[in-house]
Amino acid sequence: MPNKQQITDYFKNLQDSICFELENADGQAKFKEDLWERPEGGGGRTRIMENGVIIEKGGVAFSAVYGPLHEKMLQSMGINEQNDFYATGVSIVIHPNNPFVPIIHMNVRYFEMENGDFWFGGGIDLTPHYVDNEDAKWFHKQLKAACDLHNEGYYNKFKTWADDYFFNLHRNETRGIGGIFFDYLKPTEGVDKQQLFDFVKSIGESLAPIYTYFMKKNSGKLFSENHKYWQNIRRGRYVEFNLVHDRGTKFGLETNGRIESILMSMPPIANWKYDFKPEIDSEEYKSHKMLVKGINWI
Amino acid sequence: MPNKQQITDYFKNLQDSICFELENADGQAKFKEDLWERPEGGGGRTRIMENGVIIEKGGVAFSAVYGPLHEKMLQSMGINEQNDFYATGVSIVIHPNNPFVPIIHMNVRYFEMENGDFWFGGGIDLTPHYVDNEDAKWFHKQLKAACDLHNEGYYNKFKTWADDYFFNLHRNETRGIGGIFFDYLKPTEGVDKQQLFDFVKSIGESLAPIYTYFMKKNSGKLFSENHKYWQNIRRGRYVEFNLVHDRGTKFGLETNGRIESILMSMPPIANWKYDFKPEIDSEEYKSHKMLVKGINWI
Repeated sequence: MPNKQQITDYFKNLQDSICFELENADGQAKFKEDLWERPEGGGGRTRIMENGVIIEKGGVAFSAVYGPLHEKMLQSMGINEQNDFYATGVSIVIHPNNPFVPIIHMNVRYFEMENGDFWFGGGIDLTPHYVDNEDAKWFHKQLKAACDLHNEGYYNKFKTWADDYFFNLHRNETRGIGGIFFDYLKPTEGVDKQQLFDFVKSIGESLAPIYTYFMKKNSGKLFSENHKYWQNIRRGRYVEFNLVHDRGTKFGLETNGRIESILMSMPPIANWKYDFKPEIDSEEYKSHKMLVKGINWI
Repeated sequence: MPNKQQITDYFKNLQDSICFELENADGQAKFKEDLWERPEGGGGRTRIMENGVIIEKGGVAFSAVYGPLHEKMLQSMGINEQNDFYATGVSIVIHPNNPFVPIIHMNVRYFEMENGDFWFGGGIDLTPHYVDNEDAKWFHKQLKAACDLHNEGYYNKFKTWADDYFFNLHRNETRGIGGIFFDYLKPTEGVDKQQLFDFVKSIGESLAPIYTYFMKKNSGKLFSENHKYWQNIRRGRYVEFNLVHDRGTKFGLETNGRIESILMSMPPIANWKYDFKPEIDSEEYKSHKMLVKGINWI
Protein backbone atom coordinates (compact mmCIF):
# COMPACT_ATOMS: atom_id res chain seq x y z
CA MET A 1 0.00 0.00 0.00
CA PRO A 2 1.28 3.54 -0.72
CA ASN A 3 2.65 5.31 2.33
CA LYS A 4 2.62 9.05 2.98
CA GLN A 5 6.11 9.53 1.57
CA GLN A 6 5.16 7.86 -1.70
CA ILE A 7 1.97 9.90 -1.94
CA THR A 8 3.92 13.08 -1.18
CA ASP A 9 6.50 12.28 -3.86
CA TYR A 10 3.73 11.61 -6.35
CA PHE A 11 2.06 14.98 -5.63
CA LYS A 12 5.40 16.75 -6.08
CA ASN A 13 5.86 15.12 -9.48
CA LEU A 14 2.26 15.93 -10.36
CA GLN A 15 2.95 19.60 -9.67
CA ASP A 16 6.04 19.42 -11.90
CA SER A 17 4.25 17.82 -14.80
CA ILE A 18 1.22 20.15 -14.62
CA CYS A 19 3.48 23.22 -14.58
CA PHE A 20 5.41 21.84 -17.54
CA GLU A 21 2.23 21.24 -19.56
CA LEU A 22 0.75 24.65 -18.73
CA GLU A 23 3.97 26.50 -19.57
CA ASN A 24 4.11 24.62 -22.84
CA ALA A 25 0.54 25.50 -23.72
CA ASP A 26 0.97 29.15 -22.76
CA GLY A 27 4.14 29.33 -24.80
CA GLN A 28 5.53 32.42 -23.11
CA ALA A 29 5.24 32.85 -19.36
CA LYS A 30 7.00 30.65 -16.81
CA PHE A 31 5.99 29.73 -13.30
CA LYS A 32 7.90 31.37 -10.50
CA GLU A 33 8.50 29.30 -7.43
CA ASP A 34 8.21 30.27 -3.78
CA LEU A 35 9.52 27.78 -1.27
CA TRP A 36 8.11 28.22 2.20
CA GLU A 37 8.34 26.54 5.54
CA ARG A 38 5.69 26.16 8.16
CA PRO A 39 6.96 26.99 11.63
CA GLU A 40 5.03 24.07 13.17
CA GLY A 41 6.28 21.56 10.56
CA GLY A 42 6.55 21.01 6.82
CA GLY A 43 6.15 23.54 4.05
CA GLY A 44 5.43 23.92 0.39
CA ARG A 45 6.31 24.93 -3.14
CA THR A 46 3.93 27.60 -4.44
CA ARG A 47 4.28 28.26 -8.17
CA ILE A 48 2.69 31.28 -9.79
CA MET A 49 2.41 32.38 -13.42
CA GLU A 50 1.43 35.96 -14.16
CA ASN A 51 0.91 37.79 -17.42
CA GLY A 52 1.12 34.83 -19.72
CA VAL A 53 -0.23 34.95 -23.27
CA ILE A 54 -3.18 32.78 -22.29
CA ILE A 55 -2.90 32.52 -18.51
CA GLU A 56 -3.37 35.90 -16.85
CA LYS A 57 -2.78 34.59 -13.32
CA GLY A 58 -2.41 31.00 -12.23
CA GLY A 59 -1.17 29.12 -9.23
CA VAL A 60 -0.07 25.50 -8.87
CA ALA A 61 0.75 24.76 -5.25
CA PHE A 62 2.23 21.72 -3.58
CA SER A 63 2.47 21.36 0.17
CA ALA A 64 3.20 18.75 2.80
CA VAL A 65 2.60 19.91 6.34
CA TYR A 66 2.47 18.18 9.70
CA GLY A 67 2.33 18.81 13.40
CA PRO A 68 -0.29 18.95 16.13
CA LEU A 69 -3.83 19.51 14.91
CA HIS A 70 -5.22 22.99 15.52
CA GLU A 71 -8.07 23.12 18.00
CA LYS A 72 -10.51 24.36 15.34
CA MET A 73 -9.77 21.30 13.24
CA LEU A 74 -10.08 18.88 16.13
CA GLN A 75 -13.46 20.44 16.90
CA SER A 76 -14.69 20.20 13.33
CA MET A 77 -13.59 16.56 13.21
CA GLY A 78 -15.19 15.72 16.52
CA ILE A 79 -11.91 14.54 18.07
CA ASN A 80 -11.21 15.14 21.73
CA GLU A 81 -7.63 13.97 22.23
CA GLN A 82 -4.62 15.80 20.82
CA ASN A 83 -3.39 14.20 17.59
CA ASP A 84 -0.62 14.92 15.12
CA PHE A 85 -1.56 15.10 11.46
CA TYR A 86 0.19 14.86 8.11
CA ALA A 87 -1.39 16.51 5.07
CA THR A 88 -0.13 16.77 1.52
CA GLY A 89 -1.69 17.87 -1.72
CA VAL A 90 -1.71 19.86 -4.93
CA SER A 91 -4.00 22.82 -5.43
CA ILE A 92 -4.59 24.79 -8.64
CA VAL A 93 -6.55 27.83 -9.80
CA ILE A 94 -6.05 29.34 -13.27
CA HIS A 95 -7.51 32.66 -14.43
CA PRO A 96 -7.14 33.09 -18.21
CA ASN A 97 -6.94 36.35 -20.17
CA ASN A 98 -9.57 35.45 -22.72
CA PRO A 99 -13.14 35.47 -21.31
CA PHE A 100 -13.98 32.48 -23.51
CA VAL A 101 -11.43 30.33 -21.73
CA PRO A 102 -12.85 29.08 -18.42
CA ILE A 103 -11.39 29.44 -14.93
CA ILE A 104 -10.34 26.03 -13.63
CA HIS A 105 -9.75 24.73 -10.13
CA MET A 106 -8.34 21.38 -9.07
CA ASN A 107 -7.25 19.99 -5.74
CA VAL A 108 -6.06 16.55 -4.66
CA ARG A 109 -5.05 15.85 -1.08
CA TYR A 110 -4.14 13.15 1.39
CA PHE A 111 -4.61 13.39 5.12
CA GLU A 112 -3.25 11.07 7.78
CA MET A 113 -3.67 11.11 11.53
CA GLU A 114 -1.28 9.94 14.20
CA ASN A 115 -3.91 7.43 15.30
CA GLY A 116 -3.69 5.70 11.88
CA ASP A 117 -6.84 7.13 10.34
CA PHE A 118 -6.35 8.46 6.79
CA TRP A 119 -8.34 9.63 3.80
CA PHE A 120 -8.16 11.25 0.37
CA GLY A 121 -10.05 14.29 -0.83
CA GLY A 122 -10.17 16.47 -3.88
CA GLY A 123 -12.11 17.87 -6.73
CA ILE A 124 -12.02 19.65 -10.02
CA ASP A 125 -14.50 22.24 -11.23
CA LEU A 126 -14.84 24.56 -14.18
CA THR A 127 -16.04 28.17 -14.11
CA PRO A 128 -16.68 29.37 -17.65
CA HIS A 129 -17.47 33.09 -17.90
CA TYR A 130 -19.53 32.08 -20.92
CA VAL A 131 -21.18 28.69 -20.70
CA ASP A 132 -20.85 26.67 -23.90
CA ASN A 133 -22.90 23.49 -23.83
CA GLU A 134 -20.50 21.51 -25.97
CA ASP A 135 -17.53 22.51 -23.84
CA ALA A 136 -19.44 21.69 -20.67
CA LYS A 137 -20.43 18.29 -22.04
CA TRP A 138 -16.85 17.55 -23.07
CA PHE A 139 -15.53 18.56 -19.65
CA HIS A 140 -17.96 16.38 -17.74
CA LYS A 141 -17.30 13.47 -20.10
CA GLN A 142 -13.59 13.64 -19.27
CA LEU A 143 -14.38 13.57 -15.58
CA LYS A 144 -16.83 10.71 -15.97
CA ALA A 145 -14.26 8.70 -17.93
CA ALA A 146 -11.63 9.32 -15.23
CA CYS A 147 -14.10 8.26 -12.54
CA ASP A 148 -15.44 5.24 -14.43
CA LEU A 149 -11.97 3.71 -14.63
CA HIS A 150 -12.19 3.19 -10.89
CA ASN A 151 -15.81 3.01 -9.82
CA GLU A 152 -18.96 3.38 -11.87
CA GLY A 153 -20.74 5.10 -8.99
CA TYR A 154 -18.14 7.81 -8.44
CA TYR A 155 -19.09 10.29 -11.15
CA ASN A 156 -22.74 10.69 -10.20
CA LYS A 157 -22.00 10.81 -6.52
CA PHE A 158 -19.12 13.26 -6.75
CA LYS A 159 -20.81 15.38 -9.42
CA THR A 160 -23.78 15.93 -7.09
CA TRP A 161 -21.38 16.73 -4.26
CA ALA A 162 -19.68 19.36 -6.47
CA ASP A 163 -23.04 20.95 -7.34
CA ASP A 164 -23.71 21.34 -3.64
CA TYR A 165 -20.22 22.44 -2.70
CA PHE A 166 -19.37 24.96 -5.45
CA PHE A 167 -22.49 26.96 -4.72
CA ASN A 168 -22.64 30.66 -3.92
CA LEU A 169 -25.50 30.36 -1.45
CA HIS A 170 -25.85 34.13 -0.93
CA ARG A 171 -26.28 34.59 -4.70
CA ASN A 172 -28.32 31.45 -5.15
CA GLU A 173 -26.13 30.42 -8.09
CA THR A 174 -23.44 27.83 -8.72
CA ARG A 175 -19.87 29.04 -9.11
CA GLY A 176 -19.70 27.57 -12.59
CA ILE A 177 -20.68 24.32 -14.27
CA GLY A 178 -19.43 22.18 -11.39
CA GLY A 179 -17.34 19.06 -11.81
CA ILE A 180 -16.59 16.57 -9.06
CA PHE A 181 -15.86 16.95 -5.36
CA PHE A 182 -15.05 14.27 -2.80
CA ASP A 183 -13.73 14.13 0.75
CA TYR A 184 -13.05 11.61 3.53
CA LEU A 185 -12.50 8.88 0.96
CA LYS A 186 -11.42 5.87 3.01
CA PRO A 187 -10.94 2.19 2.20
CA THR A 188 -14.09 0.09 2.28
CA GLU A 189 -14.75 -3.56 1.62
CA GLY A 190 -13.35 -4.29 -1.83
CA VAL A 191 -11.61 -0.90 -2.20
CA ASP A 192 -8.15 -0.58 -0.73
CA LYS A 193 -5.83 2.37 -0.27
CA GLN A 194 -3.98 1.68 -3.50
CA GLN A 195 -7.22 1.80 -5.46
CA LEU A 196 -8.23 5.10 -3.86
CA PHE A 197 -4.81 6.50 -4.62
CA ASP A 198 -5.12 5.38 -8.23
CA PHE A 199 -8.43 7.21 -8.49
CA VAL A 200 -6.91 10.39 -7.04
CA LYS A 201 -4.05 10.07 -9.54
CA SER A 202 -6.50 9.92 -12.41
CA ILE A 203 -8.17 13.13 -11.21
CA GLY A 204 -4.86 14.89 -10.73
CA GLU A 205 -3.65 13.82 -14.15
CA SER A 206 -6.85 14.97 -15.86
CA LEU A 207 -6.15 18.66 -15.16
CA ALA A 208 -3.47 19.32 -17.77
CA PRO A 209 -5.15 17.63 -20.77
CA ILE A 210 -8.50 19.23 -19.88
CA TYR A 211 -7.20 22.73 -19.41
CA THR A 212 -4.74 22.76 -22.30
CA TYR A 213 -7.64 21.62 -24.51
CA PHE A 214 -9.62 24.73 -23.56
CA MET A 215 -6.54 26.93 -23.86
CA LYS A 216 -5.98 25.75 -27.44
CA LYS A 217 -9.62 25.71 -28.40
CA ASN A 218 -10.77 29.08 -27.05
CA SER A 219 -7.84 31.42 -26.44
CA GLY A 220 -7.87 32.68 -30.03
CA LYS A 221 -11.49 33.83 -29.89
CA LEU A 222 -12.08 37.55 -30.35
CA PHE A 223 -13.57 39.41 -27.43
CA SER A 224 -14.77 42.93 -26.71
CA GLU A 225 -14.63 45.18 -23.66
CA ASN A 226 -18.12 44.02 -22.78
CA HIS A 227 -16.95 40.41 -22.68
CA LYS A 228 -14.05 41.46 -20.48
CA TYR A 229 -16.37 43.35 -18.14
CA TRP A 230 -18.59 40.31 -17.73
CA GLN A 231 -15.49 38.21 -17.06
CA ASN A 232 -14.54 40.61 -14.26
CA ILE A 233 -18.04 40.52 -12.80
CA ARG A 234 -17.86 36.71 -12.74
CA ARG A 235 -14.41 36.93 -11.17
CA GLY A 236 -16.02 39.02 -8.43
CA ARG A 237 -18.34 36.11 -7.74
CA TYR A 238 -15.31 33.81 -7.67
CA VAL A 239 -13.79 36.05 -4.98
CA GLU A 240 -17.05 35.94 -3.05
CA PHE A 241 -17.18 32.15 -3.17
CA ASN A 242 -13.59 31.71 -2.04
CA LEU A 243 -13.71 34.23 0.80
CA VAL A 244 -17.21 33.44 2.06
CA HIS A 245 -17.80 29.75 1.40
CA ASP A 246 -14.68 27.80 0.42
CA ARG A 247 -13.77 25.49 3.26
CA GLY A 248 -10.09 25.29 2.38
CA THR A 249 -9.74 29.07 2.29
CA LYS A 250 -11.69 29.56 5.51
CA PHE A 251 -9.69 26.87 7.25
CA GLY A 252 -6.43 28.40 6.07
CA LEU A 253 -7.43 31.87 7.25
CA GLU A 254 -8.59 30.59 10.62
CA THR A 255 -5.49 28.51 11.29
CA ASN A 256 -2.97 31.17 10.33
CA GLY A 257 -1.93 29.42 7.10
CA ARG A 258 0.47 30.96 4.58
CA ILE A 259 -1.70 33.79 3.33
CA GLU A 260 -0.22 34.25 -0.16
CA SER A 261 -0.61 30.55 -0.92
CA ILE A 262 -4.19 30.51 0.36
CA LEU A 263 -5.17 33.58 -1.65
CA MET A 264 -3.33 32.67 -4.85
CA SER A 265 -6.84 31.74 -6.05
CA MET A 266 -7.82 35.43 -6.23
CA PRO A 267 -8.23 36.77 -9.78
CA PRO A 268 -5.83 39.48 -10.97
CA ILE A 269 -8.76 41.88 -11.24
CA ALA A 270 -12.46 41.83 -10.40
CA ASN A 271 -15.41 44.17 -10.81
CA TRP A 272 -18.50 44.81 -8.74
CA LYS A 273 -21.45 46.82 -9.95
CA TYR A 274 -24.54 47.43 -7.86
CA ASP A 275 -27.40 45.16 -8.89
CA PHE A 276 -25.77 44.18 -12.17
CA LYS A 277 -28.14 42.28 -14.43
CA PRO A 278 -27.24 41.20 -17.96
CA GLU A 279 -29.58 42.25 -20.74
CA ILE A 280 -32.35 39.76 -21.32
CA ASP A 281 -31.43 37.10 -23.90
CA SER A 282 -27.84 38.32 -24.14
CA GLU A 283 -24.98 35.79 -24.07
CA GLU A 284 -24.30 36.82 -20.49
CA TYR A 285 -27.94 36.31 -19.55
CA LYS A 286 -27.98 32.84 -21.08
CA SER A 287 -24.77 31.87 -19.34
CA HIS A 288 -26.08 33.10 -16.02
CA LYS A 289 -29.24 31.01 -16.43
CA MET A 290 -27.05 27.89 -16.55
CA LEU A 291 -25.58 28.49 -13.09
CA VAL A 292 -27.97 26.14 -11.34
CA LYS A 293 -27.57 22.80 -9.62
CA GLY A 294 -28.53 19.47 -11.06
CA ILE A 295 -27.88 19.94 -14.79
CA ASN A 296 -26.92 16.70 -16.51
CA TRP A 297 -24.27 18.13 -18.83
CA ILE A 298 -23.51 14.80 -20.49
CA MET B 1 -37.28 59.58 25.50
CA PRO B 2 -37.02 58.96 21.74
CA ASN B 3 -39.03 55.96 20.58
CA LYS B 4 -38.24 53.68 17.69
CA GLN B 5 -40.41 55.64 15.28
CA GLN B 6 -38.62 58.89 16.09
CA ILE B 7 -35.24 57.24 15.73
CA THR B 8 -36.30 55.69 12.44
CA ASP B 9 -37.53 59.05 11.12
CA TYR B 10 -34.27 60.65 12.15
CA PHE B 11 -32.21 58.03 10.29
CA LYS B 12 -34.32 58.54 7.17
CA ASN B 13 -33.67 62.27 7.29
CA LEU B 14 -29.99 61.62 7.94
CA GLN B 15 -29.82 59.53 4.77
CA ASP B 16 -31.50 62.38 2.84
CA SER B 17 -29.15 65.04 4.09
CA ILE B 18 -26.00 62.96 3.56
CA CYS B 19 -27.04 62.15 -0.02
CA PHE B 20 -27.76 65.83 -0.64
CA GLU B 21 -24.33 66.88 0.65
CA LEU B 22 -22.46 64.19 -1.28
CA GLU B 23 -24.27 64.98 -4.55
CA ASN B 24 -23.48 68.63 -4.03
CA ALA B 25 -19.82 67.92 -3.44
CA ASP B 26 -19.56 65.57 -6.40
CA GLY B 27 -21.31 68.10 -8.60
CA GLN B 28 -22.33 65.65 -11.30
CA ALA B 29 -23.63 62.22 -10.36
CA LYS B 30 -26.91 61.60 -8.51
CA PHE B 31 -27.88 58.79 -6.20
CA LYS B 32 -30.28 56.23 -7.60
CA GLU B 33 -32.75 54.79 -5.16
CA ASP B 34 -33.86 51.19 -4.72
CA LEU B 35 -36.80 50.60 -2.43
CA TRP B 36 -37.03 47.07 -1.10
CA GLU B 37 -39.20 45.12 1.23
CA ARG B 38 -38.22 42.33 3.55
CA PRO B 39 -40.60 39.38 3.36
CA GLU B 40 -40.50 38.90 7.15
CA GLY B 41 -41.12 42.60 7.89
CA GLY B 42 -39.85 46.08 7.07
CA GLY B 43 -37.55 47.12 4.28
CA GLY B 44 -35.19 49.80 3.13
CA ARG B 45 -34.05 52.54 0.80
CA THR B 46 -30.70 51.75 -0.77
CA ARG B 47 -29.13 54.67 -2.63
CA ILE B 48 -26.20 54.20 -4.96
CA MET B 49 -24.03 56.65 -6.86
CA GLU B 50 -21.83 55.34 -9.67
CA ASN B 51 -19.41 57.08 -11.97
CA GLY B 52 -19.42 60.46 -10.28
CA VAL B 53 -16.65 62.98 -10.90
CA ILE B 54 -15.21 62.32 -7.45
CA ILE B 55 -17.22 59.33 -6.18
CA GLU B 56 -16.58 56.24 -8.30
CA LYS B 57 -19.03 54.06 -6.37
CA GLY B 58 -20.87 54.92 -3.20
CA GLY B 59 -23.81 53.61 -1.25
CA VAL B 60 -25.93 55.29 1.42
CA ALA B 61 -28.46 52.83 2.78
CA PHE B 62 -31.33 53.27 5.18
CA SER B 63 -33.30 50.33 6.53
CA ALA B 64 -35.86 49.55 9.21
CA VAL B 65 -36.60 45.86 9.60
CA TYR B 66 -38.46 43.80 12.15
CA GLY B 67 -39.82 40.34 12.84
CA PRO B 68 -38.77 37.23 14.71
CA LEU B 69 -35.06 36.98 15.45
CA HIS B 70 -33.17 34.47 13.34
CA GLU B 71 -31.82 31.53 15.28
CA LYS B 72 -28.21 32.49 14.49
CA MET B 73 -28.78 35.87 16.07
CA LEU B 74 -30.49 34.47 19.15
CA GLN B 75 -27.52 32.15 19.59
CA SER B 76 -24.94 34.89 19.22
CA MET B 77 -26.86 36.99 21.75
CA GLY B 78 -27.23 34.14 24.22
CA ILE B 79 -31.04 34.35 24.22
CA ASN B 80 -33.09 31.20 24.53
CA GLU B 81 -36.69 32.32 24.09
CA GLN B 82 -38.09 33.52 20.74
CA ASN B 83 -38.15 37.32 20.54
CA ASP B 84 -39.21 39.86 17.94
CA PHE B 85 -36.72 42.58 17.08
CA TYR B 86 -36.78 46.00 15.47
CA ALA B 87 -33.61 47.34 13.84
CA THR B 88 -33.03 50.57 11.97
CA GLY B 89 -29.93 52.34 10.74
CA VAL B 90 -27.94 54.11 8.09
CA SER B 91 -24.91 52.52 6.47
CA ILE B 92 -22.40 54.12 4.11
CA VAL B 93 -19.35 53.14 2.07
CA ILE B 94 -17.79 55.50 -0.48
CA HIS B 95 -15.09 54.53 -2.99
CA PRO B 96 -13.59 57.59 -4.68
CA ASN B 97 -11.94 57.81 -8.10
CA ASN B 98 -8.82 59.58 -6.95
CA PRO B 99 -6.42 57.39 -4.95
CA PHE B 100 -5.59 60.37 -2.74
CA VAL B 101 -9.18 60.61 -1.52
CA PRO B 102 -9.80 57.98 1.19
CA ILE B 103 -12.49 55.32 1.30
CA ILE B 104 -14.95 56.10 4.09
CA HIS B 105 -17.38 53.93 6.00
CA MET B 106 -20.03 55.00 8.49
CA ASN B 107 -22.82 53.14 10.21
CA VAL B 108 -25.31 54.17 12.90
CA ARG B 109 -27.96 51.78 14.13
CA TYR B 110 -30.60 51.21 16.76
CA PHE B 111 -31.80 47.80 17.90
CA GLU B 112 -34.83 47.05 20.07
CA MET B 113 -36.12 43.75 21.39
CA GLU B 114 -39.67 42.73 22.13
CA ASN B 115 -38.65 42.21 25.76
CA GLY B 116 -37.82 45.93 26.06
CA ASP B 117 -34.05 45.67 25.78
CA PHE B 118 -32.49 48.18 23.35
CA TRP B 119 -29.12 49.60 22.32
CA PHE B 120 -27.30 51.77 19.84
CA GLY B 121 -24.29 50.83 17.75
CA GLY B 122 -22.20 52.35 15.03
CA GLY B 123 -18.87 53.58 13.86
CA ILE B 124 -16.98 55.53 11.30
CA ASP B 125 -13.59 54.65 9.87
CA LEU B 126 -11.31 55.96 7.17
CA THR B 127 -9.29 53.88 4.70
CA PRO B 128 -6.82 56.11 2.88
CA HIS B 129 -4.97 54.41 0.04
CA TYR B 130 -2.15 56.81 0.88
CA VAL B 131 -1.84 57.69 4.54
CA ASP B 132 -1.27 61.40 5.09
CA ASN B 133 -0.47 62.23 8.70
CA GLU B 134 -2.12 65.64 8.62
CA ASP B 135 -5.31 64.24 7.10
CA ALA B 136 -5.35 61.41 9.63
CA LYS B 137 -4.87 63.84 12.50
CA TRP B 138 -7.66 66.09 11.21
CA PHE B 139 -10.01 63.10 10.82
CA HIS B 140 -9.43 61.82 14.34
CA LYS B 141 -9.78 65.34 15.75
CA GLN B 142 -13.23 65.63 14.19
CA LEU B 143 -14.24 62.32 15.75
CA LYS B 144 -12.81 63.28 19.12
CA ALA B 145 -14.68 66.58 19.03
CA ALA B 146 -17.95 64.79 18.20
CA CYS B 147 -17.35 62.31 21.03
CA ASP B 148 -16.24 64.91 23.58
CA LEU B 149 -19.54 66.77 23.24
CA HIS B 150 -21.17 63.80 24.93
CA ASN B 151 -18.62 61.95 27.03
CA GLU B 152 -14.93 62.59 27.50
CA GLY B 153 -14.24 58.88 27.73
CA TYR B 154 -15.88 57.91 24.45
CA TYR B 155 -13.16 58.78 21.98
CA ASN B 156 -10.37 56.74 23.55
CA LYS B 157 -12.63 53.81 24.28
CA PHE B 158 -14.25 53.68 20.85
CA LYS B 159 -11.01 54.47 18.99
CA THR B 160 -9.39 51.41 20.60
CA TRP B 161 -12.44 49.35 19.73
CA ALA B 162 -12.15 50.49 16.07
CA ASP B 163 -8.45 49.53 15.97
CA ASP B 164 -9.43 46.03 17.08
CA TYR B 165 -12.50 45.75 14.88
CA PHE B 166 -11.26 47.13 11.54
CA PHE B 167 -8.37 44.70 11.49
CA ASN B 168 -7.53 42.28 8.70
CA LEU B 169 -6.30 39.54 11.00
CA HIS B 170 -5.16 37.26 8.15
CA ARG B 171 -2.96 40.09 6.78
CA ASN B 172 -1.93 41.31 10.21
CA GLU B 173 -2.77 44.88 9.19
CA THR B 174 -5.52 47.39 9.96
CA ARG B 175 -8.03 48.19 7.22
CA GLY B 176 -7.05 51.84 7.30
CA ILE B 177 -6.38 54.47 9.95
CA GLY B 178 -9.35 53.41 12.07
CA GLY B 179 -11.83 55.80 13.63
CA ILE B 180 -14.41 54.84 16.22
CA PHE B 181 -16.57 51.77 16.72
CA PHE B 182 -19.18 51.09 19.41
CA ASP B 183 -21.92 48.54 20.03
CA TYR B 184 -24.45 47.55 22.69
CA LEU B 185 -24.55 51.14 23.94
CA LYS B 186 -27.25 51.12 26.63
CA PRO B 187 -28.37 53.63 29.25
CA THR B 188 -26.34 53.61 32.43
CA GLU B 189 -26.55 55.67 35.59
CA GLY B 190 -26.39 59.29 34.51
CA VAL B 191 -26.71 58.55 30.77
CA ASP B 192 -30.22 58.15 29.43
CA LYS B 193 -31.55 57.07 26.07
CA GLN B 194 -31.87 60.63 24.80
CA GLN B 195 -28.21 61.30 25.53
CA LEU B 196 -27.12 58.15 23.73
CA PHE B 197 -29.29 59.11 20.77
CA ASP B 198 -27.74 62.58 20.75
CA PHE B 199 -24.27 61.00 20.60
CA VAL B 200 -25.29 58.76 17.72
CA LYS B 201 -26.69 61.81 15.92
CA SER B 202 -23.38 63.60 16.27
CA ILE B 203 -21.57 60.65 14.70
CA GLY B 204 -24.10 60.38 11.87
CA GLU B 205 -23.89 64.09 11.18
CA SER B 206 -20.10 64.06 11.12
CA LEU B 207 -19.93 61.98 7.94
CA ALA B 208 -20.85 64.63 5.36
CA PRO B 209 -18.58 67.43 6.61
CA ILE B 210 -15.67 65.01 7.05
CA TYR B 211 -15.97 63.37 3.66
CA THR B 212 -16.76 66.48 1.64
CA TYR B 213 -13.66 68.03 3.24
CA PHE B 214 -11.51 65.23 1.80
CA MET B 215 -13.34 65.36 -1.52
CA LYS B 216 -12.56 69.05 -1.89
CA LYS B 217 -9.06 68.85 -0.52
CA ASN B 218 -7.71 65.85 -2.42
CA SER B 219 -9.79 65.08 -5.51
CA GLY B 220 -7.82 67.51 -7.66
CA LYS B 221 -4.47 65.84 -6.97
CA LEU B 222 -2.72 64.33 -9.95
CA PHE B 223 -2.21 60.60 -9.97
CA SER B 224 -0.51 58.01 -12.14
CA GLU B 225 -1.35 54.46 -13.16
CA ASN B 226 0.89 53.26 -10.36
CA HIS B 227 -1.17 55.16 -7.82
CA LYS B 228 -4.31 53.69 -9.31
CA TYR B 229 -2.85 50.17 -9.14
CA TRP B 230 -2.02 50.59 -5.46
CA GLN B 231 -5.57 51.88 -4.88
CA ASN B 232 -6.91 48.70 -6.45
CA ILE B 233 -4.63 46.51 -4.36
CA ARG B 234 -5.91 48.27 -1.23
CA ARG B 235 -9.46 47.84 -2.47
CA GLY B 236 -8.74 44.12 -2.67
CA ARG B 237 -7.91 44.20 1.04
CA TYR B 238 -11.15 46.08 1.63
CA VAL B 239 -13.00 43.22 -0.11
CA GLU B 240 -11.14 40.71 2.04
CA PHE B 241 -12.07 42.52 5.24
CA ASN B 242 -15.74 42.82 4.36
CA LEU B 243 -16.18 39.23 3.17
CA VAL B 244 -14.00 37.53 5.78
CA HIS B 245 -14.28 39.62 8.95
CA ASP B 246 -17.03 42.25 8.88
CA ARG B 247 -19.75 41.19 11.31
CA GLY B 248 -22.54 43.06 9.54
CA THR B 249 -21.69 41.50 6.18
CA LYS B 250 -21.35 38.02 7.63
CA PHE B 251 -24.59 38.36 9.54
CA GLY B 252 -26.38 39.59 6.43
CA LEU B 253 -25.07 36.71 4.32
CA GLU B 254 -25.94 34.13 6.97
CA THR B 255 -29.47 35.41 7.53
CA ASN B 256 -30.41 35.72 3.88
CA GLY B 257 -30.36 39.53 3.87
CA ARG B 258 -30.83 41.65 0.74
CA ILE B 259 -27.62 40.76 -1.05
CA GLU B 260 -27.20 43.90 -3.18
CA SER B 261 -27.57 46.13 -0.13
CA ILE B 262 -25.12 44.05 1.89
CA LEU B 263 -22.52 44.05 -0.87
CA MET B 264 -22.92 47.68 -1.91
CA SER B 265 -19.68 48.10 0.07
CA MET B 266 -17.70 46.28 -2.63
CA PRO B 267 -15.38 48.51 -4.66
CA PRO B 268 -16.10 48.96 -8.39
CA ILE B 269 -12.82 47.24 -9.18
CA ALA B 270 -10.07 45.50 -7.23
CA ASN B 271 -6.71 43.91 -8.00
CA TRP B 272 -4.82 41.00 -6.53
CA LYS B 273 -1.20 40.23 -7.24
CA TYR B 274 0.65 37.32 -5.74
CA ASP B 275 2.87 38.39 -2.86
CA PHE B 276 2.70 42.07 -3.79
CA LYS B 277 5.15 44.18 -1.82
CA PRO B 278 5.66 47.88 -2.42
CA GLU B 279 9.19 49.07 -3.11
CA ILE B 280 11.09 49.91 0.05
CA ASP B 281 10.70 53.57 1.08
CA SER B 282 8.11 54.24 -1.64
CA GLU B 283 4.93 56.16 -0.78
CA GLU B 284 3.06 52.88 -0.84
CA TYR B 285 5.57 51.28 1.51
CA LYS B 286 5.29 54.16 3.97
CA SER B 287 1.50 54.05 3.88
CA HIS B 288 1.49 50.33 4.47
CA LYS B 289 3.76 50.74 7.50
CA MET B 290 1.05 52.92 9.09
CA LEU B 291 -1.57 50.15 9.02
CA VAL B 292 -1.01 49.07 12.60
CA LYS B 293 -3.07 49.27 15.74
CA GLY B 294 -2.59 51.76 18.53
CA ILE B 295 -1.34 54.85 16.69
CA ASN B 296 -2.31 58.08 18.44
CA TRP B 297 -3.10 60.12 15.35
CA ILE B 298 -3.97 63.25 17.26
